[in-house]
Order: sequence, then structure tokens, then C-alpha cells
Amino acid sequence: MGIKVGVLGARGKVGQTVVEAVLAADDLELVAEVDKDDSLQLLLDNGAEIVVDFTAPAVVMDNLDFCINNGISAVVGTTGFDDERLAQVRQWCETNPEVSVLIAPNFAISAVLTMSFAKQAARFFDSAEVVEYHHPNKLDAPSGTAIHTAQGIADARRAAGLGAQPDATDQSLPGARGADVDGVPVHAVRMTGMVAHEEVIFGSRGQSLTIRQDSYDRTSFIPGVLLGVREAQQHKGLVIGLDTYLGL
Amino acid sequence: MGIKVGVLGARGKVGQTVVEAVLAADDLELVAEVDKDDSLQLLLDNGAEIVVDFTAPAVVMDNLDFCINNGISAVVGTTGFDDERLAQVRQWCETNPEVSVLIAPNFAISAVLTMSFAKQAARFFDSAEVVEYHHPNKLDAPSGTAIHTAQGIADARRAAGLGAQPDATDQSLPGARGADVDGVPVHAVRMTGMVAHEEVIFGSRGQSLTIRQDSYDRTSFIPGVLLGVREAQQHKGLVIGLDTYLGL
Amino acid sequence: MGIKVGVLGARGKVGQTVVEAVLAADDLELVAEVDKDDSLQLLLDNGAEIVVDFTAPAVVMDNLDFCINNGISAVVGTTGFDDERLAQVRQWCETNPEVSVLIAPNFAISAVLTMSFAKQAARFFDSAEVVEYHHPNKLDAPSGTAIHTAQGIADARRAAGLGAQPDATDQSLPGARGADVDGVPVHAVRMTGMVAHEEVIFGSRGQSLTIRQDSYDRTSFIPGVLLGVREAQQHKGLVIGLDTYLGL
Amino acid sequence: MGIKVGVLGARGKVGQTVVEAVLAADDLELVAEVDKDDSLQLLLDNGAEIVVDFTAPAVVMDNLDFCINNGISAVVGTTGFDDERLAQVRQWCETNPEVSVLIAPNFAISAVLTMSFAKQAARFFDSAEVVEYHHPNKLDAPSGTAIHTAQGIADARRAAGLGAQPDATDQSLPGARGADVDGVPVHAVRMTGMVAHEEVIFGSRGQSLTIRQDSYDRTSFIPGVLLGVREAQQHKGLVIGLDTYLGL
Repeated sequence: MGIKVGVLGARGKVGQTVVEAVLAADDLELVAEVDKDDSLQLLLDNGAEIVVDFTAPAVVMDNLDFCINNGISAVVGTTGFDDERLAQVRQWCETNPEVSVLIAPNFAISAVLTMSFAKQAARFFDSAEVVEYHHPNKLDAPSGTAIHTAQGIADARRAAGLGAQPDATDQSLPGARGADVDGVPVHAVRMTGMVAHEEVIFGSRGQSLTIRQDSYDRTSFIPGVLLGVREAQQHKGLVIGLDTYLGL
Repeated sequence: MGIKVGVLGARGKVGQTVVEAVLAADDLELVAEVDKDDSLQLLLDNGAEIVVDFTAPAVVMDNLDFCINNGISAVVGTTGFDDERLAQVRQWCETNPEVSVLIAPNFAISAVLTMSFAKQAARFFDSAEVVEYHHPNKLDAPSGTAIHTAQGIADARRAAGLGAQPDATDQSLPGARGADVDGVPVHAVRMTGMVAHEEVIFGSRGQSLTIRQDSYDRTSFIPGVLLGVREAQQHKGLVIGLDTYLGL
Repeated sequence: MGIKVGVLGARGKVGQTVVEAVLAADDLELVAEVDKDDSLQLLLDNGAEIVVDFTAPAVVMDNLDFCINNGISAVVGTTGFDDERLAQVRQWCETNPEVSVLIAPNFAISAVLTMSFAKQAARFFDSAEVVEYHHPNKLDAPSGTAIHTAQGIADARRAAGLGAQPDATDQSLPGARGADVDGVPVHAVRMTGMVAHEEVIFGSRGQSLTIRQDSYDRTSFIPGVLLGVREAQQHKGLVIGLDTYLGL
Repeated sequence: MGIKVGVLGARGKVGQTVVEAVLAADDLELVAEVDKDDSLQLLLDNGAEIVVDFTAPAVVMDNLDFCINNGISAVVGTTGFDDERLAQVRQWCETNPEVSVLIAPNFAISAVLTMSFAKQAARFFDSAEVVEYHHPNKLDAPSGTAIHTAQGIADARRAAGLGAQPDATDQSLPGARGADVDGVPVHAVRMTGMVAHEEVIFGSRGQSLTIRQDSYDRTSFIPGVLLGVREAQQHKGLVIGLDTYLGL
């Protein structure tokens, strides 16, 4: 009686987590688990209204071709979408206007909100810095999310006509003031035990504002995926990024 | 050459801070300092375009009557505005449509943003609590701001159809789970050395989002006042609360 | 070539985590995995020097009887030790003076250090409060650890002749100021996504000190267990609580 | 009836704050305020038992010579003590064994405790980093305190035989991972509105420990000074640094 959901890549680690989450949700009905040896026909046979696709770049376009052209909506976390692929998906959506497709690079709602709030707040503060914390096995520093957040802040500062941040430092150990991302210092902490955490700090006279996001485990994408499934009907066509669904 | 600013209540503690801030701002020009023994005529004589009023409920209506009806805009932090007073101010503004009047209970931008972000975020999380921290001389607990924030969260949860927050507690010391403000727990910490700090925490699967505001000293209202002065021209008529100026 | 370790309760969830951690440690050698259908004789056959016991109150005394009286040391996380049981273990240790037995209620090093630092710091501050954060399925509020921490602070304040904490609150919503644990306010937050976190805050003029402990997952007892195994040799006889091993 | 206190440099900004704090303390009696045009004889005339000296390197040795050799104890925050000066003070103390002299570079108790706790904790964690936050007018980055804290951590790690911290970063923007202080990353944030704040973070499997110190204003040295005055009697001779008084 709930929304009929099919899960693609259902036997992968991420897919399994999605399957469990759909099963646990009262308003959703799991109707098909599809993995690489299964036919997509299973979706039609079981009346799937929407799929969740955490598969691979090599197969996601075939999945979307099949789903969209059969009137099935999709929530997609698979990576590898360039402009060409997005144009193709958009075209499929145009010929199937009743379908909703959400493609998002990040389903962690707290992370998407952090980025959005940072952009909203940036123009009101003299100072803005980003500190991100991850487990020590991470290869890049700072994280892509932190760089993206800093760029959003830098854009907002520029649009508001703010100049360089105040900083009288004239005697510094190399690296102390972090990485310079478009004028916004970004600091990366690597710490055994931590998962993924980001803190954005703004300062002006007599006050500061801190927006912090903590991901405690690998299931933090689930609430965003479920939101995508539940509210797909309200967002026809192709939507890129969770922001629209979050009303941002 | 900058905006010509008059300060009302200029010799009070708050007024003095405003005077210094206006003097320090390159794009503002201090043209009149008015206190209780001075005539408001000083504003006209010196060409004030806008006043900042941190005075007292007993005199603020006379101040606004004079200013608005002489075409002078106003940024007002004085308290004591009830519906009747606001209706009167609104009427003066209608007959002087070129004037801007901003009346705000809270000029701490970080606090206003915290409240707004909390409202935006609330519907996406299972759990929401507020922890506020103040110096131990504060008489009320929780703070008015924290109660207001909690109510905003409660409204947003209700509007989104969220039910009660998950909480399996069945064995509790009295007070451990905080004050219940419309279903949102609010905790008040009183700590020597602290000034005024508020933290809003949201949680959903695998993640949390924290929005924190710190006021380090009594001058944290200044950036909001200066914003009000600088952007008054873009907000004709009566505006209540800083939110509109913050684009919220 | 490392320390020869046996794991009791090896096929339970906790035991499995211990097994994996011992296997992953270069300086430890896993020589026996014992669960309920296995004979303790396995320990002797494989030359175990020390066991880790996360079993059950019903069997732990038999385990310790066997181990201690066969010259095998033990690191014990099993609960249910009352004075009588401790006296018995102490007696076994006296007749086997080369054996080390560590029985600890909490192996999370960060939590044990937080409690110790809180006790050390308490006498130097006017104000002290505890805020703990747990998942919403927890039955008690505040947590036992938070109550214990608050009591430690209260004892230290009393010993230093400090009086009641400053608090001018005279208008309060019920619960706002937390639970009163021996004069120390304790606040309990329940938040989906969180695991177990404790924050102790101290304040005096112009400053505060915060000691915070975060447990991100159920494996946070492992570093304490491994420390117990590695340093057992330096602590002959019965030791209760990890503090001694931490040099506190 | 309380301890008779003289304040040297009594009309300077810091001295004034000390004067007010002594006046406000029930157990202390302010008997002499001495500044540059006053004679030290005032101390003897008024029976000072102990002085607080926040003066200047050029006069502090004369002050100490007079005080110690007249049997007056001293709490000294003036800078500029090299080995030679300390040797001289130590010699004066030896000939006046009833006198107590405390010379400390930092009287902010929360900062001194943070450093001490960091040293105690360091050997139990795989990872350790320092993040410090200051107002943007600060000239050096990181702060001297943060560098000192990192060195304390590095020493403790070395003494415990810990190797390099885990860090798989192989793709990094310059500065992202902070300044390398003896193997401990230190990050410096510069933020309008902030005063002086330091956070030390430790991580091991499944957990982290954070020790944070906030100085909200310039009076945060006062509790340490008062502690020094009150407990001087228990620490005869020359003591360097507040640690001894804190029982660390």
C-alpha cells in the first residue's frame, strides 16, 4: 500500500543497506531486488514505481534508459554523470514527463544543509573558515565536500562585495593557517576513530556562528535516499542534487 | 559622504558603543549624538538620514514620530513594542513611504541565523534538542531565545507531520531530559565566564547537525545594527525583526 | 612471539571483536578461542599467558578460578562483581602472586580519562556541569557514567571547600537546569544517530574548560582491552578499573 | 583579616584588574597599590605579606630583590625571566626560606590544565592534533601555547614508543594538514570576535577525546593569580609555572 520501490545493485553493501531501510519503512513497499545477474524486467513484473540505484557508472545509463522509458522514477547515487550523460537523462525525462529522477552526489542531509547554510550565512561575517575531520585512511585533504563548501562561501563573499578576510599573521609555521581555497582557509584533521565531520565557523564582532555536521557511520545517506523516494512525486523531471528536495 | 547617521540615547552604554562603531565605519558619517537633554531638532540641523535608537519605551514613540514624519529612517533596538505601538508606527510609515523603519528584538546576526536555520532543518531530522549556555547571573532558564528557537522547531516538525521525538527513557532523574518546550527538550547550562551561547542539535540515522551561536561580549549587536543602517534603503516601510534584512 | 592470548566468550559479538583485534596486533598472538562448549583446558594446551573474558556473570568466576590457579592472567570486562566475588578473586591472586587480573567496568580509555581529568580540574572552577548525549533507545537518563562523573566532581569540590555553584535562576521551566547530582547539574540529550558522548564543562572568570568524550561505535572498548593485555605484567595482583593502568 | 596583598604596577590595565579582584575577595586584604612613582617602602609600611607583580622586565628584579629580602612573597606574571634571572631569584629565596615566589608565563588555569591533560592522555591514542582559535590581530600562527602543547604531546608519544601518526593523505592542498610541530599537526584559525581558544583532539579506535579551553576575555588570568596568592604559603621557595599549584 506504500510506494512500490525497486532496489538496483541490491546485493552490494550499499544496496543491502537500502533494502533494509525500505523494508523498515511503513510507507514503502520493497517489490524488487535487482542485482547484476537479474533482469530489469523484474521491476515491471512487480509494479515498481521508483527505483533506488547505487550501482556503477558502467550500468547506470542502461538502468535509467529502461526505468524512465517504462515510467519508473529513480533516485540515483551512482557516480560518473558528466554533462553528456545528464543531457541524455534530461531528454528521456522530457519524453516521459510523469517521471522523477533525482541524481545526487551526496545524500547526507546534514552535509547538504551545512553547505547551504554556509552559503546563506557567508555574507554577514568578516571571517569564515572550514575545519573537516576524517579517519586517517582518507587519501585527499581537504575533503571534496570541504573544498566545495569553501568555494560556496567564497562565491557568496564575492557577490556581497566582501574583501579579503582579516588576518594579521606575519610569523607563521608553514601550513598553520590551513589550505587557501579561494580565500577561505580550510583545515583537515585526520584522526583514528572519526568517520566524517565538517565544521564551518563564521565570526564577526563579539560573536561566532558554527555549523557542524557529523557522520557517525556509513548509513548516513539513508535518510536522504528515503526523502528522495517519498517526495519524488513532487519533483517531476530531472533534479540534480538534494537541495531542491530540501527546499533550499 | 557616507550615510548620515544620528544616534539616539548616545550617552548610554549601548549608545556609546553604537557611536564608536559608526565612527569606525568608513561608509557611515556620524552627524548627531542625541541624549535626553538634547533636542531632536539636532537631527534635522545636521541632515541625519537615519537614526539608531537604543533608548527607552517611554521616549521611543516620540522619537519615531519625529523621525518618520521628518523623513528620517530608523533602526530601533528599544523594547516595549506591542501591537498598538506597531500599528501606530506602520501608519506613520504609510504617510512617509520613503522612510525605512527596522524594529528588532535581537540584533545578534548569529543568533537570528541560528533560529532561521533551525526552522529550515527541523523537518528533516528525527531528533532535535536545544542546549543554551549563559553566565550564572541570568534569572530565567531557559533563555527566551532558546524557548523561541524550540517553538520554531516544534512548529516546523508539526507542519511536516512529524510525531513525537524518539525517546525510550523509562528511568530518569528529575530534570535530566531538560525542559519540554512543545515537545523539544531544552537544556540550560549556567557557567561562570560564559556570556551567551546557544546550540541546536539535530539527529537522524548515522548523522547529526549542530548549529551553534556564541556571543563573546556585549557588542555582538553591532554588526546587525550596521547592517540595518546600510541596507535600510532597500527595505521601505516598517520591518519587524532582522530576518528580512538577512534574506531569510 | 608476542604475548599469548586466549579469548573467552570468543564467538559472542564482543568476543569476535576481541579476536579480530588480537589477530590484527603484531605484538599479540591468539592461541585459543574458547566459547561455552569448549574446555578451558584449551588455554593450557596452547600456552595462553593471559585471557580476555567478556562472558557472563554465571561463568566468569569459574573461568577466573581456572585461569588464576593455572598461572594465567586475565583482563575482564564481564559484569556482576560484588565485594564477595572481588574478595574471592583477590584471595586466588594472593596464592598466585605472578598473575595479573584487571577487572574494569569501562574499557573506553577516553571515558576513563574524562572522569579522571574532571576530578583533577574540579576544585579550580566555580561552575561545573555535565552534558551527555546518547542514542534514543537508552533506557536511563542520565547515563551511569555521567552520574559517576558528576559525583567525582562533587567530591572534589567538597574536599576543596567549595560551596554551592553560582546560579541566580529564579524563573525556570521544570527540567531546564538538568538533574541535580550532588550539586552538579547533569543534562541528558537523546538523539537519533548518536552513540555515546559525554561533555564536562567547567567555568571560572573569563574562561571555560571542556572535556569531551565521543564513542562512535561499539568497538571503543578495544584499545583499553589491548592496553590491559600489554601492560598486565607491570600490575601484578588484582586491579579494579583501568585508572591504574592509565597512570591516574 | 585576610592575606595582606600589595599590587605592583597597580595603575596599569592589568594591575587595575588585579586590584579589583583582590578588593572583591573576602579572604584577601588590599594593603598597598604601588606604581612607578611610588616607593616600595609602602609595602612594608602597610604590612604586605605577598605582592602581585605584573610590571615590566626593567623593574621586576628590583621589585623581587626588595620583596624577598624583606620577607614578602610574590606572584609574578611579568615576562623576561632567563636562566640568569631565575638563578638570582632562587638565591634570594634560599636566604629567605620562609618566602614563596611563583613566576608563571600563563595564569589561565584552563590553559595550564589543558596542556597537562594533553600530556597525560597522549600515550593512549593513535592520533593527536591541536586546533587553536584567535582574533585576527594575532601576529603569530600557531600560538606559542599551541606549539608548546604539541611539543608536550610529541614528547609523551616518544616516551611511550609511539611512532608516526597514521595518515594516508597522498593528495593534499598545501597547508591542509596544518603545521607539523614535532609530528603533531597544529591548525590555527583566525576569526573576528574570538579571543583565545585551544582544542586538543585525540583519537583511537571507535572514540575520540577532546580537551578544549576558551578564554572569553582579558581577565582570565585572575583566578590563577588569586590561587597563587592563596596557596603561596604551601609552596615555599621559587616555583616556576602554575602546574605545581594545580597539583599536576
